[in-house]
Amino acid sequence: MPAVDVAGEFETIRRLFAPLAHPEWGRGLLDDVGVVPSRPGLDLVLTKDAIVEGVHFLPTDPLDTVARKLMRVNLSDMAAKGAEPFGYLLACHWSKRCGWPERMTFCDGLRADQKTFGVALVGGDTVVTPGPASFSMTLLGWTPKGRTVSRSGASAGDLVFVTGAIGDGWLGLQGAQGKLRLEPERVAALVDQYRTPEPRLEFAMPIRDMATASIDVSDGLIADLGHLADASRVRIEIDLEVVPRSAAGQAWFDGRVDEQAALENLVTGGDDYEIVFTASPKDEVALRREAERRHLRLTRIGKVVGGSGIVARFAGQPVDFRRPGFTHG
Amino acid sequence: MPAVDVAGEFETIRRLFAPLAHPEWGRGLLDDVGVVPSRPGLDLVLTKDAIVEGVHFLPTDPLDTVARKLMRVNLSDMAAKGAEPFGYLLACHWSKRCGWPERMTFCDGLRADQKTFGVALVGGDTVVTPGPASFSMTLLGWTPKGRTVSRSGASAGDLVFVTGAIGDGWLGLQGAQGKLRLEPERVAALVDQYRTPEPRLEFAMPIRDMATASIDVSDGLIADLGHLADASRVRIEIDLEVVPRSAAGQAWFDGRVDEQAALENLVTGGDDYEIVFTASPKDEVALRREAERRHLRLTRIGKVVGGSGIVARFAGQPVDFRRPGFTHG
Repeated sequence: MPAVDVAGEFETIRRLFAPLAHPEWGRGLLDDVGVVPSRPGLDLVLTKDAIVEGVHFLPTDPLDTVARKLMRVNLSDMAAKGAEPFGYLLACHWSKRCGWPERMTFCDGLRADQKTFGVALVGGDTVVTPGPASFSMTLLGWTPKGRTVSRSGASAGDLVFVTGAIGDGWLGLQGAQGKLRLEPERVAALVDQYRTPEPRLEFAMPIRDMATASIDVSDGLIADLGHLADASRVRIEIDLEVVPRSAAGQAWFDGRVDEQAALENLVTGGDDYEIVFTASPKDEVALRREAERRHLRLTRIGKVVGGSGIVARFAGQPVDFRRPGFTHG
Repeated sequence: MPAVDVAGEFETIRRLFAPLAHPEWGRGLLDDVGVVPSRPGLDLVLTKDAIVEGVHFLPTDPLDTVARKLMRVNLSDMAAKGAEPFGYLLACHWSKRCGWPERMTFCDGLRADQKTFGVALVGGDTVVTPGPASFSMTLLGWTPKGRTVSRSGASAGDLVFVTGAIGDGWLGLQGAQGKLRLEPERVAALVDQYRTPEPRLEFAMPIRDMATASIDVSDGLIADLGHLADASRVRIEIDLEVVPRSAAGQAWFDGRVDEQAALENLVTGGDDYEIVFTASPKDEVALRREAERRHLRLTRIGKVVGGSGIVARFAGQPVDFRRPGFTHG
């Protein structure tokens, strides 16, 4: 079959990826495999996300932000599970438009985020595709044995908390598509947030110590809380009015006539990469202290009760969502 | 962006992939992450391969064999490194033609090979793409601490061995494309070999115990020996006449007029997934005994000397390859 790699598989590995490899575990990317020593007393945590041009990112998104988003989306899973990331494997399915300059840009993004988050490349593959570009990353982390936080530990009486603000991912997507009427600097901030969300790794340890169940907000707050309620076999009740908004999100919200419709967009849009979790009321003070210490916003948005499903109230009335979250497919 | 998954992301995970998940480590595929306990004294070995429709597999290849080939290509890396595989993560980038029946077929292939090779799914992602289908797998294995065989341990005086037969992958590709004039049952056998190669896992332990350097034959025997020579900073000399051929390969070879050109095709075509490795002459007897015990063909094809590069001789004369191996890109 045709060998159409304009930039060359081996050259791409040697010149672009090898400098990103873990000095020991990556074996210089010359050995088909990465090798990571076991750490007695720790569990290996693995997560894998795939993204496709035109589906999960825009053809106009710069490739360094695509690389960083891919990494951050995976890091966000680690944070929500209370894990400490250390390395990753990467598969790049380059499209025809991905020549040397584009691949270098992609790797610039990886390099920047490797430094920010303390992870290194341990292996992967690089191929070409006649279709749109796509990428997948397997991220590796550690947790103390048996301590990985699940979706299934919530019980009646727990409280529901969320980090940061909800809705900026969706607003940023609107901004990147030129659909947002706000001051340019606000739009730019939202687009940045959409392209390079902040994984809440700084809160992974409090999550591990105190969360009874946890998930990162990727599909949308309502959908992800639904996953958590299903896995825990509980009912989750939240108030839409208290779901935290960013300054930019508030500015957008203030311009809406239909407040309920606006809130529905924010809580179902997804791509937020905040952590929503449940915890016992006895831990609320400690959680708030840990959040403050990290200058991280933490908001109590609801509670866990017996039953099933998710109930979101606006002005005291349950809201019936047409679609609880965004499905990329 | 459009949500175009005809079969549904959550349904695909719940109905097709969850039954393939490791009962403990996969967390029912409901938890964003897989969790694998560390094994003190062992190293974690990771490899990741990606395949694209129209590049690495044919649009006419049945999807169960595509899944099995993806797994086997990764398993072959494990075998060549002396590792014992136990689990995998999978990213499926489904094309429009991948509805329920196609996905079920793909998972049938996974299920069959999970059973054959003793591995289980521990996580992954499923997305859709407007382009051709592609898939990537991260395979996980264990080796005793520090014992993963590399490409770089060959030294002058070592001998060069290869398992099985070389050339059937390339012949099988010709067969799948309707380009092969041989008896139909021979063509069918070669196409089978191309679609579902046999990873030499049964020989992983002798490799680990006795190989000084090792690589699986994916790019082509000459190209892969070149990688090994480069990494080990040695020169490798082989005789093309002694490179082992299968019965079908021999039948094809017997019909050629230009023997040298025929041999060049077989040793540069790739997709063989045999193991080519170097070992000390003192271990030759033990290696042959281990191979015989497993009814595995093992052929000495050359030797390691000082210098650099790869020299392949035909009728005593060095052959100048136009291209040493196949590059998918």
